[in-house]
Amino acid sequence: MNEPVRIGIIGAGRIGRLHAENLVRRIRGATVAAIADVVLEAAQDCAAAFSIPGAVADPRALLEDREIDAVFICSSTDTHATLIEEAATCGKHVFCEKPIALDLPAIDRALGAAARAGILLQIGFNRRFDAGFRRAHDLIAAGAIGRPEVLRITSRDPAPPPSEYVKVSGGIFLDMMIHDFDMARFVMGDEVEEVFAVGAVLVDPAIGAAGDVDTAAVTLRFAGGAIGVIDNSRRAVYGYDQRLEVHASKGRILVENPKPDQVLRADAAGDHGAPLYRFFLDRYTEAYVAEAQTFIDALVAGREPPVTGHDGRTPVVIGHAARLSLETGRPVRLADVASGPG
Amino acid sequence: MNEPVRIGIIGAGRIGRLHAENLVRRIRGATVAAIADVVLEAAQDCAAAFSIPGAVADPRALLEDREIDAVFICSSTDTHATLIEEAATCGKHVFCEKPIALDLPAIDRALGAAARAGILLQIGFNRRFDAGFRRAHDLIAAGAIGRPEVLRITSRDPAPPPSEYVKVSGGIFLDMMIHDFDMARFVMGDEVEEVFAVGAVLVDPAIGAAGDVDTAAVTLRFAGGAIGVIDNSRRAVYGYDQRLEVHASKGRILVENPKPDQVLRADAAGDHGAPLYRFFLDRYTEAYVAEAQTFIDALVAGREPPVTGHDGRTPVVIGHAARLSLETGRPVRLADVASGPG
Amino acid sequence: MNEPVRIGIIGAGRIGRLHAENLVRRIRGATVAAIADVVLEAAQDCAAAFSIPGAVADPRALLEDREIDAVFICSSTDTHATLIEEAATCGKHVFCEKPIALDLPAIDRALGAAARAGILLQIGFNRRFDAGFRRAHDLIAAGAIGRPEVLRITSRDPAPPPSEYVKVSGGIFLDMMIHDFDMARFVMGDEVEEVFAVGAVLVDPAIGAAGDVDTAAVTLRFAGGAIGVIDNSRRAVYGYDQRLEVHASKGRILVENPKPDQVLRADAAGDHGAPLYRFFLDRYTEAYVAEAQTFIDALVAGREPPVTGHDGRTPVVIGHAARLSLETGRPVRLADVASGPG
Amino acid sequence: MNEPVRIGIIGAGRIGRLHAENLVRRIRGATVAAIADVVLEAAQDCAAAFSIPGAVADPRALLEDREIDAVFICSSTDTHATLIEEAATCGKHVFCEKPIALDLPAIDRALGAAARAGILLQIGFNRRFDAGFRRAHDLIAAGAIGRPEVLRITSRDPAPPPSEYVKVSGGIFLDMMIHDFDMARFVMGDEVEEVFAVGAVLVDPAIGAAGDVDTAAVTLRFAGGAIGVIDNSRRAVYGYDQRLEVHASKGRILVENPKPDQVLRADAAGDHGAPLYRFFLDRYTEAYVAEAQTFIDALVAGREPPVTGHDGRTPVVIGHAARLSLETGRPVRLADVASGPG
Repeated sequence: MNEPVRIGIIGAGRIGRLHAENLVRRIRGATVAAIADVVLEAAQDCAAAFSIPGAVADPRALLEDREIDAVFICSSTDTHATLIEEAATCGKHVFCEKPIALDLPAIDRALGAAARAGILLQIGFNRRFDAGFRRAHDLIAAGAIGRPEVLRITSRDPAPPPSEYVKVSGGIFLDMMIHDFDMARFVMGDEVEEVFAVGAVLVDPAIGAAGDVDTAAVTLRFAGGAIGVIDNSRRAVYGYDQRLEVHASKGRILVENPKPDQVLRADAAGDHGAPLYRFFLDRYTEAYVAEAQTFIDALVAGREPPVTGHDGRTPVVIGHAARLSLETGRPVRLADVASGPG
Repeated sequence: MNEPVRIGIIGAGRIGRLHAENLVRRIRGATVAAIADVVLEAAQDCAAAFSIPGAVADPRALLEDREIDAVFICSSTDTHATLIEEAATCGKHVFCEKPIALDLPAIDRALGAAARAGILLQIGFNRRFDAGFRRAHDLIAAGAIGRPEVLRITSRDPAPPPSEYVKVSGGIFLDMMIHDFDMARFVMGDEVEEVFAVGAVLVDPAIGAAGDVDTAAVTLRFAGGAIGVIDNSRRAVYGYDQRLEVHASKGRILVENPKPDQVLRADAAGDHGAPLYRFFLDRYTEAYVAEAQTFIDALVAGREPPVTGHDGRTPVVIGHAARLSLETGRPVRLADVASGPG
Repeated sequence: MNEPVRIGIIGAGRIGRLHAENLVRRIRGATVAAIADVVLEAAQDCAAAFSIPGAVADPRALLEDREIDAVFICSSTDTHATLIEEAATCGKHVFCEKPIALDLPAIDRALGAAARAGILLQIGFNRRFDAGFRRAHDLIAAGAIGRPEVLRITSRDPAPPPSEYVKVSGGIFLDMMIHDFDMARFVMGDEVEEVFAVGAVLVDPAIGAAGDVDTAAVTLRFAGGAIGVIDNSRRAVYGYDQRLEVHASKGRILVENPKPDQVLRADAAGDHGAPLYRFFLDRYTEAYVAEAQTFIDALVAGREPPVTGHDGRTPVVIGHAARLSLETGRPVRLADVASGPG
Repeated sequence: MNEPVRIGIIGAGRIGRLHAENLVRRIRGATVAAIADVVLEAAQDCAAAFSIPGAVADPRALLEDREIDAVFICSSTDTHATLIEEAATCGKHVFCEKPIALDLPAIDRALGAAARAGILLQIGFNRRFDAGFRRAHDLIAAGAIGRPEVLRITSRDPAPPPSEYVKVSGGIFLDMMIHDFDMARFVMGDEVEEVFAVGAVLVDPAIGAAGDVDTAAVTLRFAGGAIGVIDNSRRAVYGYDQRLEVHASKGRILVENPKPDQVLRADAAGDHGAPLYRFFLDRYTEAYVAEAQTFIDALVAGREPPVTGHDGRTPVVIGHAARLSLETGRPVRLADVASGPG
């Protein structure tokens, strides 16, 4: 057996703690050497909770630690790109939460640095590691339903985020639908060429006041000719709702929502089943484990992880195109939004 | 094209009217010549509703009518066996509602008369013609799931019948579970050898006062070694509930309840689907049509219809065995209840 | 009881025969006096099959028949508008299959004539009478899920029509998606203001050669702010697929496909359920009955039927807007396509 | 925060390792001090895998260790009762895997010792902690469906155990259906008074040669009048199948099987869903965690855990009654099988 991969975690917020817990308790082949957070107390608290030896405020301490092989970047989005560059300079492999950045030049600088340094990089699109979405991908990639022709994705959150968050998040396309743009590429095995977006403020006027929409639908045209439609809502009173359908020449695949239990109660009013999960960490518990395990396994094997920097960049391009389409009321080609290394 | 088969209907109650309507409106190859009911007005009313030329009080008028080829016996249960005998004597083919009779000697006299006269006879176990139960039968008969090993049937009525009806109906085993005994033989393709019954009065004390139970479970042993369990309840607040499962060496078949619609409403309390049908005529609308069409087609082709006199007799034997088991608290072999022509 | 409404049927093709059979056998309060078809033999054949007294070649014979109260226009689409005008002139009430016409001036002339004559007019959007779609509509109209925000409709046919049919049908938006445009208005209780369409030829090159697409997605903007997405495909190997979802402020409603049976077979490869219906007449059998009964009931009551001329016109407007959007690659407002009486 | 409860684990086989892993990684409030196994290497291997300080061959070392508060008895069934007695003597709280023993005198000695010592004792009926079965229990206990009237339980294993195991396991009623007997009491909130069992050898002749059956159905009579039917099979090619239904005066509750994913593939042959789990540790992963957490929480709070010694004893009594019923072909009252402290 190899020595475990030594991990440093940057960011001890909700998602940093989740990765810390998984790496300590459920991931084979890794140990967590230290955790950093600008709020030192948060790092210390997480370290104590999961018996992590080191807790620091400055992420540079991790990046310069020769005992650390790789870092998980779980800090705020605006720090991701710079931290990737710095990690690359220090020769650390990187798992980075999505998105890499909201602006493409920053992404390109980060990806350029990673490429020059030859580090391994995985972007945190956790839904690719969900059992259902993964099996859908695998069946489609294996040709089980023939050539994909129509994609439908629905994503809805139980409740809208605070409008302060909306302001810095990049908006619905770069914060929320970005997962669906990634999923679209993943399950279709094809690239998006053009988008058309519509949006509305139906849930929370504060989101509108912050310059964003809370309800949106985007039409996708794929390079291979297929068509996609994605709809998002910031509110679903019945829970965290993420479904996908691919219609193809020889059949169709649906990915339905899992549920916390399979109890069906019947009374004179009909059948009643359990509500959906209400929180993404409950919905994607196992996906996060599989995601981190995949990264560690790739490091151990010395091979490129499956969600590359390019995979992290492209949904941001699609998000910008969708935003531009919403603003102009016109379809937008990706080629008109971004060029460069991609 | 052949001349249509000329039908006389005996009994203008609920089920007689149903067959009249189906024969007039939906069955190919048949015409209804006349309808008889001891309440002449009922016969006349039905005749008027469905443009049936003749309406009489005495069923003998139909049986002796040379223009009539076959009769549908839809009168009260206590008249079935005698009418079969008389119809046989008159050379009329017979479709007879279940059960043929509650006592086996009467059944055997009727079946003997039918056999001697060489008439074609079909017993009204309508559920065999339901799309779901039929496909389950066909899949099993074709070996799709291998050798059947375990049968489960659940049947529940929305609400109990009046206790006066319970008194003359033969009780839960001969009135209600008789359908399940028939279904057991149909889908398993095997004969029941022994039963063990338990019962309780949980729904309506009046049923207990009438000497019957309203909740019952019967274990079946089949000749080929398989095991079955049937449960019945006289009350299901959520609707008319009939499900079946066959577990076998290479798989399993479930027949679930159909629903009036496929609407799923979700709210914070969960998912909500439509209630089941509440009335057997709504649940088995199409099965009744297929049943009558099958009978007419058999007459036209001159071949034996698929639910024979033997198929009508055997569930009565099982019902008597179940009743005896309930009374004695012991398993009962069918061979100990009935012998004879079967 | 009133005298039955006397109906003349114009067109003895597939849909004309269906209405004839339903009116004769299943609809209360109506009789069919005569049927007309330019192919006299087709009219005669249908008349014989369903005991209809009259069979003629020229529809004018029906329109001028004083014994006839109303006509069902089931002839080819290009005759609908003129026949409505003529029927109006003759004072006959009209049930007309969809679409009224492909061009708006013809529709407006027909609706103008009907209005001037004061006849009752119902357009044949049969899906509104399906149990599932109707209950979804009723729940939404009753406020069961709050304010509608997102609509999703999927419609797929098992196999593409002949390309000759495609040429005269008006194309996918006016022939196929027109049902979904109607459904969108029906369940949302709101009007479409703008559409954006994308399309592709993925199923049958002959459809492309005929100037149409066989795969399409249309985004809708509703007057009240809600957003809709509709996708259509001319081929679904797994059957006739029509589903709908309305997401709203207090919940969500899904209408799933009904199935011919509820058999679930399990083996080592998983669970296997029945395929969908493969033919729209099997899928919508009961909807066609409910549709015709509704028309007859409205005539008897002397009230306006529920699918008005305006309801017949508007989906054609949306279809033209969708076609223009497809051709221009730009969103199109309905106001830019049509004006007038509407 | 309290000091963590210090646990010793007895038995490093499959289930002992599972509890070790859960206690180390997922359970709050506990630490594992040592693990014992008669095969010392197995104990050492488990200790190494989960960083457990101590590994010994003799469980007495754990029982006499003053630093240990409680033991998990995960050794072979024939050692359970004696170990409970010894643990009680040593004042250790006990979590013991099911069954306590196959013979009632041994169970009674163990429970007597536990009672005299005043230790807390929980028996390992893990299915009570499954999300679905638990919610069914909670709904029924809260009166959500009224008074329970009919219980149905189906349990099927993917493949039969080796016949050597069958010989020492106590047979299908004490090894497999014992879970269902416990579940019956749990969800019905009532006691079984009488059973009737039928069985057959349909899966593996070696099981018959070992004196057991591989397919069985048991009818239960509850003290409150309700009726239950349980069916078991040692083979289900489609996976690990455990379902439950309670029919009651005001409704019905079904607990269906969870699935590894919610992917539905459709093709011309119909709909295809994922197979069930094939291994009980995958099916009940979370139930085992909840079970152990419940025990630890009870220890911390100093209250009696929810699955008592009595709960462990009663299913063994039912199992013996079922076995006697199978052998005699007669219903058997529990009162005729067992008396005593219970």
